[in-house]
Amino acid sequence: MKLFHWTDVTKEKAEAGAKDTYVRWLITKEKDGAENFAMRLFELEPGGHSPFHDHSWEHEVFILEGDGTVTFPDGTEKTLKPWDIVWVPGNEKHNFKAGEKGLKFVCLIPYLE
Amino acid sequence: MKLFHWTDVTKEKAEAGAKDTYVRWLITKEKDGAENFAMRLFELEPGGHSPFHDHSWEHEVFILEGDGTVTFPDGTEKTLKPWDIVWVPGNEKHNFKAGEKGLKFVCLIPYLE
Repeated sequence: MKLFHWTDVTKEKAEAGAKDTYVRWLITKEKDGAENFAMRLFELEPGGHSPFHDHSWEHEVFILEGDGTVTFPDGTEKTLKPWDIVWVPGNEKHNFKAGEKGLKFVCLIPYLE
Repeated sequence: MKLFHWTDVTKEKAEAGAKDTYVRWLITKEKDGAENFAMRLFELEPGGHSPFHDHSWEHEVFILEGDGTVTFPDGTEKTLKPWDIVWVPGNEKHNFKAGEKGLKFVCLIPYLE
């Protein structure tokens, strides 16, 4: 069992295709032995965004702080506020964009066989 | 894909053995088709607590708001603050207790076969 603070985990540049976006891998298989799913915290600077993309795995997202939008598969953008939840099933196009305040959220993904 | 606010989800009394503890099942297999893991939000009123227990599945916990403690398997209590992370592997005894402010956190669990 482990207790730590979000800032104890190294902040890394997010994947290619994202702009001004950083990630901290809070709970993982490699670091913690979490076999089933990983917890990450994303930080998007004001105007930052993740790529509009899809993949086979789902996202379970909890918005922590800031402002921004999430894009739905049909291109519609909806406004985000703290303590919103976003459920992104596998194979649905999506991205997250920060507004003027920046945007922080946790995003969990499965470890699929 | 779905976007909603935490208060859109019904608040239920938590399991037997918990005191002044409520849960909202934010993302589930039944409601959303989340096959791999579920996201819940727990609200402990001031002085509320979950049972000191263990089970085969893990918890991935992100503290949102308030104050309190988490109990480790050896009975040690450690203080919680907002944006702390708790990793509870399967089969390790644990509980969460709220302080004077109450305590809110998200807690994710796997759907095991």
